[in-house]
Amino acid sequence: MRYALEIAYDGRPFNGWQKQPGRKTVQGTLEEALSRLEGTDVHVTGAGRTDAGVHARGQVASFDLSKSWEIERLLRALENNLPPEIGVIRAAKASENFHARHSAIWREYAYFLWTASHCYPQVRPFVWRVRPGWDSPDLVLACKALEGEHDFALFCPQSECPPNSVRRVLRAGFVRRRDWIAFRIRATGFLFHMVRNIVQDLRSIAEGKLSLDAFRLSLKGRGGQRSNRGMAPASGLFLWKIGYSPSPWE
Amino acid sequence: MRYALEIAYDGRPFNGWQKQPGRKTVQGTLEEALSRLEGTDVHVTGAGRTDAGVHARGQVASFDLSKSWEIERLLRALENNLPPEIGVIRAAKASENFHARHSAIWREYAYFLWTASHCYPQVRPFVWRVRPGWDSPDLVLACKALEGEHDFALFCPQSECPPNSVRRVLRAGFVRRRDWIAFRIRATGFLFHMVRNIVQDLRSIAEGKLSLDAFRLSLKGRGGQRSNRGMAPASGLFLWKIGYSPSPWE
Repeated sequence: MRYALEIAYDGRPFNGWQKQPGRKTVQGTLEEALSRLEGTDVHVTGAGRTDAGVHARGQVASFDLSKSWEIERLLRALENNLPPEIGVIRAAKASENFHARHSAIWREYAYFLWTASHCYPQVRPFVWRVRPGWDSPDLVLACKALEGEHDFALFCPQSECPPNSVRRVLRAGFVRRRDWIAFRIRATGFLFHMVRNIVQDLRSIAEGKLSLDAFRLSLKGRGGQRSNRGMAPASGLFLWKIGYSPSPWE
Repeated sequence: MRYALEIAYDGRPFNGWQKQPGRKTVQGTLEEALSRLEGTDVHVTGAGRTDAGVHARGQVASFDLSKSWEIERLLRALENNLPPEIGVIRAAKASENFHARHSAIWREYAYFLWTASHCYPQVRPFVWRVRPGWDSPDLVLACKALEGEHDFALFCPQSECPPNSVRRVLRAGFVRRRDWIAFRIRATGFLFHMVRNIVQDLRSIAEGKLSLDAFRLSLKGRGGQRSNRGMAPASGLFLWKIGYSPSPWE
């Protein structure tokens, strides 16, 4: 029987999603918990391979179990077998050919920027603190520039960049509240470090250190230009939501 | 020079507010940081003595420093000298007779209840999880019953109960959002464990295990009745706001 899980996690204690021998990872922790329920090794596939320290609100995982579990019982059994840093949001029996990664039609990330001069300790591990009043009309234009198909080769470390580095951004924009701003970006796929490199550039734009034209030029792939501008920290980044059609949750 | 600080903290790593030899407390940590700035011992007074594990969003502390600090500089110096579990929200020079505890005219606590069946790991340390759909029309009536002057002796462990256990509740009520409910209570003062005992009773009322009449009877002090009904955990409780007149922040 194939199952789908939507999970949230606090990325701090994990060396990212992907299983690595001798290191605590989300995939490894999830596989251990499911293997205890199954009595034998269970392999888990994730929709997105989040990096060390990156959080998730809506990561999706798929896996097979030999018996048919009542969903409420599976949720309780997982809650009892997972550390408090991983929460299971929902679970469902999925069709045989559902695959958390290959079936995904889009992924959405959220990046939280904290704009007040003070910050609450409950919030601090999940945001990047920026200058109070952080804002710029250019940010809206930068988001517009991101939408559509671009070669994001310059937003990925060279050693990690796949031969085809073109990705389609379906939407990019900001949500503003009193003390924080969330940058949300939805795309067919993401390259390694892509969101954190984009957020770094957006910060440079808002602070007047990077022009919109220079940013647009860096979206032209290897033919464009993007000098080393650093990278936003993992703390503010959340894998927010994965899109499927049909949805495994309905 | 007398100063006032508004501070927020994550209560988990602390053995409460009050200084205790050999244990990590909020008051002790704050005094250490201020003493480093001052070069000699600084004593700090807090508006409320929060218990082990209880959080704060708006605790207020007062203390004296020998020199006159520019407020922005003091904020930065404190941020560099405090652990990430304590955040300074604002600071001000206060009048000579300002006293964080004695000058307070009211205190407000918030208690967060989580009402969805799933829970995010980022939220879990700051809420008490209750049954999904948790609600009851009696909760509004219980809040009404709380308002006014009552003898709260039965909401405090006997060994900790002062001779005068009458307190005036200025307002009590619920704020509801999609997945959580906050209980807010403002009073001239609180007894030890008072809010957590009240929240335990509100939960019992919502779950039909305690009648409104029995709850009202327990507000009559030592002449009333309140059998041992347990206590809500520290995780959901925040010291939310302290009221002063005049306010030290204006």
